[in-house]
Amino acid sequence: MPMIPAPIKDIQFLAEQLFNLEQHYQNLPKYDDLDAETFETVVDEASKFLFEFAAPLNRNADEQGCRIKDGHVTTPDGFVELYKNYCESGWVSLDGNPEYDGQGLPYWLQVIIGELNTYYCPGWSNYPGLTHGVRELLEHFAREELEKMFVPKLTTGEWTGTMCLTEPHCGTDLGMLTTNAVPNGDDTYQITGTKIFITSGDHGLTENIIHLVLARLPDAPKGTKGISLFVVPKFMDGERNNAWPASIEHKMGLNGSATCVMNFDDAKGYLVGEENKGLNIMFTMMNGARLNTGIQGMAVSSASYLGALEYAKDRLQMRSLTGAKYPEKAADPIIVHPDVRRMLLTQKALSEGNRALTYFTTQQIEISKHAKDDLTRKLADAKVSILTPIVKAFMTETALEVTNLGIQVFGGHGYISEHGMEQLYRDAKIFTLYEGTTGIQALDLLGRKIMQFNKGSLGPLADEINDFIQNNPNNPYSEELQEYMQQWQEIIIKVSKKSMANMDEMGAASVDFLMYSGYVLLAFLWAQMHESADKGGRFGQSFYNGKKKTCEFYFKRILPRAQLHVNTMLSGSDNLMQMDESEF
Amino acid sequence: MPMIPAPIKDIQFLAEQLFNLEQHYQNLPKYDDLDAETFETVVDEASKFLFEFAAPLNRNADEQGCRIKDGHVTTPDGFVELYKNYCESGWVSLDGNPEYDGQGLPYWLQVIIGELNTYYCPGWSNYPGLTHGVRELLEHFAREELEKMFVPKLTTGEWTGTMCLTEPHCGTDLGMLTTNAVPNGDDTYQITGTKIFITSGDHGLTENIIHLVLARLPDAPKGTKGISLFVVPKFMDGERNNAWPASIEHKMGLNGSATCVMNFDDAKGYLVGEENKGLNIMFTMMNGARLNTGIQGMAVSSASYLGALEYAKDRLQMRSLTGAKYPEKAADPIIVHPDVRRMLLTQKALSEGNRALTYFTTQQIEISKHAKDDLTRKLADAKVSILTPIVKAFMTETALEVTNLGIQVFGGHGYISEHGMEQLYRDAKIFTLYEGTTGIQALDLLGRKIMQFNKGSLGPLADEINDFIQNNPNNPYSEELQEYMQQWQEIIIKVSKKSMANMDEMGAASVDFLMYSGYVLLAFLWAQMHESADKGGRFGQSFYNGKKKTCEFYFKRILPRAQLHVNTMLSGSDNLMQMDESEF
Repeated sequence: MPMIPAPIKDIQFLAEQLFNLEQHYQNLPKYDDLDAETFETVVDEASKFLFEFAAPLNRNADEQGCRIKDGHVTTPDGFVELYKNYCESGWVSLDGNPEYDGQGLPYWLQVIIGELNTYYCPGWSNYPGLTHGVRELLEHFAREELEKMFVPKLTTGEWTGTMCLTEPHCGTDLGMLTTNAVPNGDDTYQITGTKIFITSGDHGLTENIIHLVLARLPDAPKGTKGISLFVVPKFMDGERNNAWPASIEHKMGLNGSATCVMNFDDAKGYLVGEENKGLNIMFTMMNGARLNTGIQGMAVSSASYLGALEYAKDRLQMRSLTGAKYPEKAADPIIVHPDVRRMLLTQKALSEGNRALTYFTTQQIEISKHAKDDLTRKLADAKVSILTPIVKAFMTETALEVTNLGIQVFGGHGYISEHGMEQLYRDAKIFTLYEGTTGIQALDLLGRKIMQFNKGSLGPLADEINDFIQNNPNNPYSEELQEYMQQWQEIIIKVSKKSMANMDEMGAASVDFLMYSGYVLLAFLWAQMHESADKGGRFGQSFYNGKKKTCEFYFKRILPRAQLHVNTMLSGSDNLMQMDESEF
Repeated sequence: MPMIPAPIKDIQFLAEQLFNLEQHYQNLPKYDDLDAETFETVVDEASKFLFEFAAPLNRNADEQGCRIKDGHVTTPDGFVELYKNYCESGWVSLDGNPEYDGQGLPYWLQVIIGELNTYYCPGWSNYPGLTHGVRELLEHFAREELEKMFVPKLTTGEWTGTMCLTEPHCGTDLGMLTTNAVPNGDDTYQITGTKIFITSGDHGLTENIIHLVLARLPDAPKGTKGISLFVVPKFMDGERNNAWPASIEHKMGLNGSATCVMNFDDAKGYLVGEENKGLNIMFTMMNGARLNTGIQGMAVSSASYLGALEYAKDRLQMRSLTGAKYPEKAADPIIVHPDVRRMLLTQKALSEGNRALTYFTTQQIEISKHAKDDLTRKLADAKVSILTPIVKAFMTETALEVTNLGIQVFGGHGYISEHGMEQLYRDAKIFTLYEGTTGIQALDLLGRKIMQFNKGSLGPLADEINDFIQNNPNNPYSEELQEYMQQWQEIIIKVSKKSMANMDEMGAASVDFLMYSGYVLLAFLWAQMHESADKGGRFGQSFYNGKKKTCEFYFKRILPRAQLHVNTMLSGSDNLMQMDESEF
């Protein structure tokens, strides 16, 4: 794929115009002096930096991948230099605590850097991405001594971090984990066990790597209630700890990202938080990682769309069905063909809709942390709780569709590695798997968040959408959106009732429910984009026309999928559960 | 992936019970002595042979791929020996002409061998697959001298064949091709030009390779009416012809299959058929290649389903939502979870439905060629004409869904190469691209076959389905199927009317229409399978129960997709065409 700069205009339209970042930050005391110009400058410069230094490494990262030799993992050519440059240029510490040499900028900018990292070089994006989560976790949950020990160098990027959860026999089912931790009598523990699928488990980017490891103390309760969290650095007081990469995985994609099997053999570590409460703490980091994964899906979708769009404008093949559009050329560019447009507009509607969903969620996260009053924070938090599994699963499932279409627009050329389109699909596929599969997100959304926590209500998220509908009665999509909002709530009642008699009904409806929710949310966001584009602004008439027409496309050709999900989810669990195992 | 033997029971159920092969062949004089036992033995033995010799090469074929050095392409380890063994064991010549040492068995068995080749080792399947098409073409269209020169060794597999159509600037749009052919004054021509994406373009499996090349004669008319077909052997009268592989493509998958850029530089060849009529001849081979591609999609779907099913029965993770099902185990196997079943049943319903569609189509092809009376042949041919683009596109698009779900059932492990699940997706992706993309199949179906050739009628295909409905009024799915048959015809009328005013309406509806047609056809086939399973037979009650319950799943959870396609296709072309190129 030719390197195409990230769509800064789209990012700015959302940040500045649709989501009015200045007004947003005026309500958050911590950031109330942040202006749109600063925001834009950071985004612009980050994109230029990554276009220059990360994008050129992307194809080789895929081909060369990572290697392991004598217990040392080597990343693709250029990653070490890129990482150094990235840290020195301050991108790693954007929203870090100024006390630890962070720049004190808001999370939203960190989100956009994450988006751009993945946009330009997916295999690179996890090195800074996970470090961010490890730093946040330790800043919130580690005792002060440990915070001082680890957070400063994680903030500046001198060290990177990992999360070590999965074991060969347990991924989803962490209650089964067997890695154990034995107290040494001082404040340290000896950790022993094997962890798999450890992203950035080893590499040469930094002199130290900080592992967060879930393990069991002696006599810990069985299951998830007996899991504690430890921080285990690769080097401890200058000495090599016994935490070694045993091998690296050969994967479908994301080859630049080192996925390690890690052996902990009496490795020394510290307890983080209370004994046996490790899983709860880890889940706060997990929520961040889930959002990041959704964002990764959106970013590769955007890259795939822009790659396909450029090709569709350039590639000459056949004449338009309604007569030559470019008679002076040997054939018409394929963008004249209705079905090519159907593919491109599907890519555009989903990738841009998902970007809007990302920033909407990001704002809610910021409000939930930094709003002045408690109630506002709580309402935002309730929204984030429901949005998180949707962002994770909907934005990654649709990323598979979008990146597949990106290949399809290229025809046979899409299958050839040098164009880069097929890499985007391969890189994207892990996003529906790691940090909890789509099925797990769906159970979290419907079973935990909506049925258990919210007692069947969509809560303040629905209120916000209903407010938009009420405040914009002339929006051409308000009425349809209103119908969906009603249906969304009705579905929950129907499924909840059935589930009370039989919990398999919930499981049988869950993924359809999640996808339905995603499509309705995108309808809300596209209606908002339409409203905003209608008002015009500094981005030019073509840009606004494009948004409005894509909104129409979304309501006519994408949103009807929501009805399909209603049909299948209400078909019940019998058609799934009545098969005996021997009958498959 | 563990090597799982192909589902012979499913193949036999369809061949013997549902499609009653003995009765079928009794109506075809050429094969009227073929009995079910012979058929079964051939299928059984072929599967055993390929399980033993092809399946073990699959993973290495993907990893090692093909290489090129000094104008010679090398295939993955073991392919040369496999090919020799395959030919010597007679699998290559199954339906070949006995006059040329073929075995004179019916095409259907050749289809099943093709299915099994792909099932066990997709990257290997094109070497015998394409040769079959080249042999058939030359047998039908080459003058006797050329037939004698090439067909015997293509029949026995001593030589393989290729089809050389695509050039860098033209794939779909063959009217633009520039490879030229200059007559030598005798019966030979000098061919010069570059062809890309040439499957099996070079390799060391055989001493000779027979290229079918599309090229232009001097002063040929422009466009598709000036294309002639030439047969260009790698070696001609023992001398190396100037047809050389320039490079091989690095692809997303199907790495065992050598995809070559071929340079023809005054290579010597013979004209096949009449001057300037090459494209028509090539299209007869193309139709066969399109069916084969659909079958490849079905075969990898089947492999993915069976791999996922085995894993879902073995992998222990979490407890059933309704309480432990295997309390003696550390956790329940994941097949207890409703969403895992949703994925598995989707795989099962699509892969087994597509196998039924394959054999249904195969029978029609055989009838169209070998039935006693002309009318029967013509009616079957009309069915095949409509079925071909559906088989090609529907069975490959659904293969992407099925192989993606196969990865998803494995969770994170699905992303790791050693399990083989991700390879199936990568191998499958080419199937929606080569031999005409999904978009091209859809235009062929709706624009050419239905609107142009059939004047808007579904023809004898609809008659056959309506007959089934009438003859089986008690089938629990007859009524619903009846409604779809009516809707199918209504849609055609609606789209045709709109298209007369604006041909973009046809293009805007085409892919949705093709997918709709595929889902209705699978509904017909699942209803038939239900009917047949209900009668029972020798395959055991669990097997029949499985078929009937999968039919129910299909009607409740898959077929509703057809309505979504109706909604989107009837939304018209405006939402696609109104975007100015600058507004994307």
